Amino acid sequence: MTVGVLGAGQLGRMLALAGYPLGLDFLFLDGGPGTPAHQVAPSLFGKFTDAALLDDLARRCEVVTFDWENVPAEALERLASRTRIAPPQAALATAQDRLLEKELFARLKVPTNPTRAVDSLADLQRAAADIGLPGVLKTRRLGYDGKGQKVIRSATDIEGAWDELGGAPLLYEQFVPFDYEVSAIGVRGRKGEFAMYPLNRNLHRDGILRLTRAPWKSVTLERAARRTLRRVMEHFDYVGVLAIEFFVRRGKLLANEMAPRVHNSGHWTIEGAVTSQFENHLRAICGLPLGDTAPRGHSAMLNLIGQMPDRERLLREKGLFLHDYGKSARPGRKLGHITIVESTARAADLRAHRLLRQM
Amino acid sequence: MTVGVLGAGQLGRMLALAGYPLGLDFLFLDGGPGTPAHQVAPSLFGKFTDAALLDDLARRCEVVTFDWENVPAEALERLASRTRIAPPQAALATAQDRLLEKELFARLKVPTNPTRAVDSLADLQRAAADIGLPGVLKTRRLGYDGKGQKVIRSATDIEGAWDELGGAPLLYEQFVPFDYEVSAIGVRGRKGEFAMYPLNRNLHRDGILRLTRAPWKSVTLERAARRTLRRVMEHFDYVGVLAIEFFVRRGKLLANEMAPRVHNSGHWTIEGAVTSQFENHLRAICGLPLGDTAPRGHSAMLNLIGQMPDRERLLREKGLFLHDYGKSARPGRKLGHITIVESTARAADLRAHRLLRQM
Repeated sequence: MTVGVLGAGQLGRMLALAGYPLGLDFLFLDGGPGTPAHQVAPSLFGKFTDAALLDDLARRCEVVTFDWENVPAEALERLASRTRIAPPQAALATAQDRLLEKELFARLKVPTNPTRAVDSLADLQRAAADIGLPGVLKTRRLGYDGKGQKVIRSATDIEGAWDELGGAPLLYEQFVPFDYEVSAIGVRGRKGEFAMYPLNRNLHRDGILRLTRAPWKSVTLERAARRTLRRVMEHFDYVGVLAIEFFVRRGKLLANEMAPRVHNSGHWTIEGAVTSQFENHLRAICGLPLGDTAPRGHSAMLNLIGQMPDRERLLREKGLFLHDYGKSARPGRKLGHITIVESTARAADLRAHRLLRQM
Repeated sequence: MTVGVLGAGQLGRMLALAGYPLGLDFLFLDGGPGTPAHQVAPSLFGKFTDAALLDDLARRCEVVTFDWENVPAEALERLASRTRIAPPQAALATAQDRLLEKELFARLKVPTNPTRAVDSLADLQRAAADIGLPGVLKTRRLGYDGKGQKVIRSATDIEGAWDELGGAPLLYEQFVPFDYEVSAIGVRGRKGEFAMYPLNRNLHRDGILRLTRAPWKSVTLERAARRTLRRVMEHFDYVGVLAIEFFVRRGKLLANEMAPRVHNSGHWTIEGAVTSQFENHLRAICGLPLGDTAPRGHSAMLNLIGQMPDRERLLREKGLFLHDYGKSARPGRKLGHITIVESTARAADLRAHRLLRQM
């Protein structure tokens, strides 16, 4: 069975590496050679809007999935009419637009922070008045890793934020002074089977995920996250892995955003869970039985950002798992990650923070 | 860093899959497209004796290693004069010839069963008289998975065995009525660092490995195996993974044969050890620090031979790790393997034998 993948970044690379042992083949579509996934699997090169390439991909693959959620709507349309795609088109369309995402959460009665669409300075002033300050002005589309966001702390920030981001469709949302952040990763099969990994506790810096610790043990939060995942997945008749990021404030979850794909905060599952998120995504979209999401020990995952630390130094660390994405160095770029697995949560915490200080 | 590999079978495939996360690139050399390794990495196609191809491989790779030990001597020569090869040429040459192997064991005072070279019927008769019956007549070269062997139980079998195998250089060795078989897998780095995995207990059927259980706990046997591994590795100034197979008889090890490469009985290390034999082989030959060989739980590995069992049925088994090599079915052919990891040796044993009955 050949799995087509739109986008050939590190997520695609790790999908392929997880899929080969299952006997799957891969075909990627992305801009050009040298991508992390193309280093390990065949690729078609071109634009996501190139109809001939999309048709070729659809013809050669039993199912098409995504390394990147911002695939243009026309590409999704074309693929969906020619082959099976998973996750479903509607889930991708919703995840591409922060406003639709927030509206969906509200519609499904998933607790989230108040949000308003902003298409003019007047809209922004009205939203800030309604929801209150501080708040965050965000682009509805194409924001990731903290890009396309502006915090508005007082009324005097409003015009500056509008000047910076105005022009693109925006939204304004209440700023959440969260205690910490968690994410939940679930997988749903073609017959509606469902499994969820233990919760991840995430630490961001400059809008980029730095550290994930899992399992983050909280029976109440996990129950709430499971309810949310199931509700969102059932809404879309979802197939594949879905990640939802939450703020935790006073012991409650507030849904922040969703990613209809394998997720950075789930990379620890490669060594730290029985079946990785990558393998489970493939099992789900290929109609195979889902794998066990139980943890193996206590994991911590750290992103390697901007430039790779010395490989020898890393590998001298006992039981450190290195994942180099084969990318060239660039400030703010995710070049790889490392995972450690310990037998206690405390040992994983201590070691993760020691490593974080060394990065 | 690009690693060249001669031979593109499942061992090469698993090497590449283990090496990508370390940031390594691969280039294989083998007969043609569609091999297990070529499905996941670029390859050169042609004979191992093609000088131009060997030169191309040597030019493009910082180090060349082997998926298969029976590489022709002239290919080893040519590569060794043009690039770094690991494991060393002398270890491959010895492992290619069962007689040299046995003579080496004897020279290094590694306990092994008595052996004689056989180049004529008269040699065979003399060897059988010296060593006694029963014994095994074997080809010195190119025997694997029980091929090229003939058990001689009584004097009347001698001529028949000679008729069948005579012509090629042979050896005669004492038949060992062993209690069971184990193998030891070690890894040695470029500066002489050494690490060893826990012992594997192996079950063969029809000369092909069916089941490996690890760790096989025996302090005495492990100590003896470690001594043997170190002695053989130091003799060759070895770099990479080396496997030695032993018979166990009355609580003692008798060395049977060595493999200067990653070994089928070490496949469980992918999920069952902190660092897999594949990753450790690459770390060793690339001059990187060796990884931790400690087990994670109690593993069992079963080979999938001749035809693949139903994939869905396999994947319904909780915590079963499937490795499909992407090969077409053929009687006696190793098409894949499965590994289970349990928290106790007893649980791993029971489950392994249940699965074995189902294969």
